[in-house]
Amino acid sequence: MSGRVKTLLSAAIVCLACSPAWSQSALMKQAQGLFKPLPETPPSLPGNPATPAKVDLGKMLYFDPRLSESHAISCNSCHMIGMGGVDLQETSLGHRWQHGGRNAPTVYNAVFDVAQFWDGRAKDLEQQAGGPLVNPVEMDTTETHVVEQLKGIPGYAAYFAKAFPSGRDAITFDNVRRAIAVFEATLITPHAPFDRYLKGDEHALDAKQKEGLALFIGKGCAACHNGINLGGRTYAPFGVVERPGADVLPPGDKGRFAVTKTASDEYVFRVPSLRNVTLTPPYFHSGKVWSLQQAVGIMGSSQLGAQLTEQETARIVDFLGSLAGDQPKVTLPILPPSGADTPRPRP
Amino acid sequence: MSGRVKTLLSAAIVCLACSPAWSQSALMKQAQGLFKPLPETPPSLPGNPATPAKVDLGKMLYFDPRLSESHAISCNSCHMIGMGGVDLQETSLGHRWQHGGRNAPTVYNAVFDVAQFWDGRAKDLEQQAGGPLVNPVEMDTTETHVVEQLKGIPGYAAYFAKAFPSGRDAITFDNVRRAIAVFEATLITPHAPFDRYLKGDEHALDAKQKEGLALFIGKGCAACHNGINLGGRTYAPFGVVERPGADVLPPGDKGRFAVTKTASDEYVFRVPSLRNVTLTPPYFHSGKVWSLQQAVGIMGSSQLGAQLTEQETARIVDFLGSLAGDQPKVTLPILPPSGADTPRPRP
Repeated sequence: MSGRVKTLLSAAIVCLACSPAWSQSALMKQAQGLFKPLPETPPSLPGNPATPAKVDLGKMLYFDPRLSESHAISCNSCHMIGMGGVDLQETSLGHRWQHGGRNAPTVYNAVFDVAQFWDGRAKDLEQQAGGPLVNPVEMDTTETHVVEQLKGIPGYAAYFAKAFPSGRDAITFDNVRRAIAVFEATLITPHAPFDRYLKGDEHALDAKQKEGLALFIGKGCAACHNGINLGGRTYAPFGVVERPGADVLPPGDKGRFAVTKTASDEYVFRVPSLRNVTLTPPYFHSGKVWSLQQAVGIMGSSQLGAQLTEQETARIVDFLGSLAGDQPKVTLPILPPSGADTPRPRP
Repeated sequence: MSGRVKTLLSAAIVCLACSPAWSQSALMKQAQGLFKPLPETPPSLPGNPATPAKVDLGKMLYFDPRLSESHAISCNSCHMIGMGGVDLQETSLGHRWQHGGRNAPTVYNAVFDVAQFWDGRAKDLEQQAGGPLVNPVEMDTTETHVVEQLKGIPGYAAYFAKAFPSGRDAITFDNVRRAIAVFEATLITPHAPFDRYLKGDEHALDAKQKEGLALFIGKGCAACHNGINLGGRTYAPFGVVERPGADVLPPGDKGRFAVTKTASDEYVFRVPSLRNVTLTPPYFHSGKVWSLQQAVGIMGSSQLGAQLTEQETARIVDFLGSLAGDQPKVTLPILPPSGADTPRPRP
C-alpha cells in the first residue's frame, strides 16, 4: 500500500469516526427547527388568568363526579391523571355504560393544541370543558343542572367567590368551564428526553432514538407532527394516500366534516399530539389499534404512501418513547360535602 | 332583702355560673370512658408490615382501573379519597352499570373496624380488598385475571418485587390484597374536633355539640356507637325495638344471616362507624336516607324506642359534625403504562 493510499484511508477512517458527531449535530439542528421543547410552567390562557384559587377550584371540579347526572363520572374518569391523561379504552364508557364516539384524547399538554376534540369543534380548553358535561353519552347533564348541582353543595359558594371575586353570582356554567380550563392548563409533562435533546443534550436520546428521529423527519411524519406537541396544530385527512380499513377508519365518522360541512373535510381530523404517545394506547380516533408499532405502520402507508420496514417502525417507536415526560403530581382535592338538600344522583 | 338572703342568692348565682364547667368536665370524663381519639399515624396490620414500597404499590393498585374487567372501575371509584371515602350513591354503580347490593361504606378509618362489609364477612382489610374485584356487580374480574393483568403491565413487576422482596413470584392475588390493605390503613382522619375534645380541649366542641354529645350518651346511642370509630366494633339487628319500613330495611337483605346462617342474625348488620358521618350520605346499608337528621330519628325509634324531638336530633347532628376529621392528602400515583401485549379491557 502506498503512503498516499494509506493517508487517504486514514482520512476516510477519521471521517467515518467523526461522521456520527457531525450528523447528530445536523439532526439536532433540524429537530430544533421543527419542534419546540415543552415549557416548564403552564401557559396563561387569554382572557382567563390563572390564580391559585381558580386552579384549586378547577381541580375540585375536574375530580367531582357530582357534575355528571349519575354522580359517577368526572373529567378524571376518562382523562386520568397518572395514567397518561387517558382511560386506555377504545372509546370511553359514559352515562349508563354507553360508549363514546371516539377515543378520549389525553388532557396532558392539550393546552398547546390549536383546538380541542378530534374534529376541533371547540376552540380551546374552556369551550371543550363544557362538552362532555352535557353530552348524553358522557356525563349527560345540562348547563342548568350543573349550576343547580353546585349551588346545592354548600361549600362551593366560597370557592367560586374566591376564584371569581368580581362577579356577584360566581357559580355559573361559564365559570365552571373557566376554572376547569385553568386547571387543565397546568397538566403539562415537561422534561421528556426529547425536550432535553432539543435543549442541546446530545446524550438525551440513544442511537436508536436518533435513528428514529431521523426517519421521523426523513419519511415526512414531521410535516404534520411538529411544534411543541408534535401535532395538534393542523388538520389532515386520515388516508391521504391510501384509506385504511373500515375497522380503523369507520365510514360513519366523517370527522371535521360534521363541523364545517365542507366536502374537503370528510375524514379530516385534528392531527393528534404525539407527546406521551407510548402511554396512551389505543390509537387513532377509533381507538382500534393497540400496538404503537402497528399505528406507525398504518400512518406510513395511509398518510405517506411509504411501506416502512419493521426495523424502521421499531426505530420510530423508539424515538416516540423519548416523548414521555414527567406526568403531573396532583394531590386529590378535598371536595365540599353534599348536604340533605344537594340534588341527588340520577343514575 | 335581708343580708342572709342576699348571701344565699349570691351563692346560687356563683353555683349557676360554675355549673356548666362542672357538668362539662363530667361529660368529658364520661366521653373519655366511652370513646377513644383517632391515632395520628396509621396502625400496623398483623402479619402485613407496612413499608414505603408496599404502601406505594397499594396506592397504585387502589387507583388502577385495569384491575376491573372493564378497566373503568377502581377501588377509588366507590371509595373516593377526598369525598368522604365514599361515592355518595345509594348503592354503587359497578360493572355494566349494575347497582351493588348495599351502600358503599367509607374506606376512611375502616382499619379500626372489627370486620369489613356491612355483614362483616371479611375479617380484615386484606380479606375485604379481594371482594369487590371478583364481585360480578362490582369489578367483575377473577383472581387469575388480576394476576394475568398485572403481569401484562410491564412496570408492575419491579414495584411488586420491591414491596414483596422475599418471594420469587411477587405478583400474586394475595400480595395485591396485602398491598391495598396497607395503603388503606393509611386512610385515617385524625384531628376532628371531637378528638381534640377527648384529649381535653373543652373548647373543641361548642355548646350545641356538647348538648348533642350528652344526648348521644344519655339516649343510648353510645351503647353501640363507641370506641375509636363510634361503631364498627359490634353487630346489631336493625330494628331492635321497631323495624323500620321496607324502603329503609328491604326484606330481601337479611344481613349477617347470609354469613352465619343463624336465625338470630337475621337483619343483623355491623354497627357502622360514625366518623365523618356528615360527609357520607346517604345512610344505612340500603342508602335510602339522605338526611342525617332523619337517620338519627330512625335510629332513635328503631333501635332505642325513643321518639327524639326535632331539637334533640338537631343537637345530635351537631355533635356528629364534630366527628369530621382531616381527610387524607393523597397524591395520585403515576401508574405503569400498558403495552401492546397488556390484556385489554372487556367492557
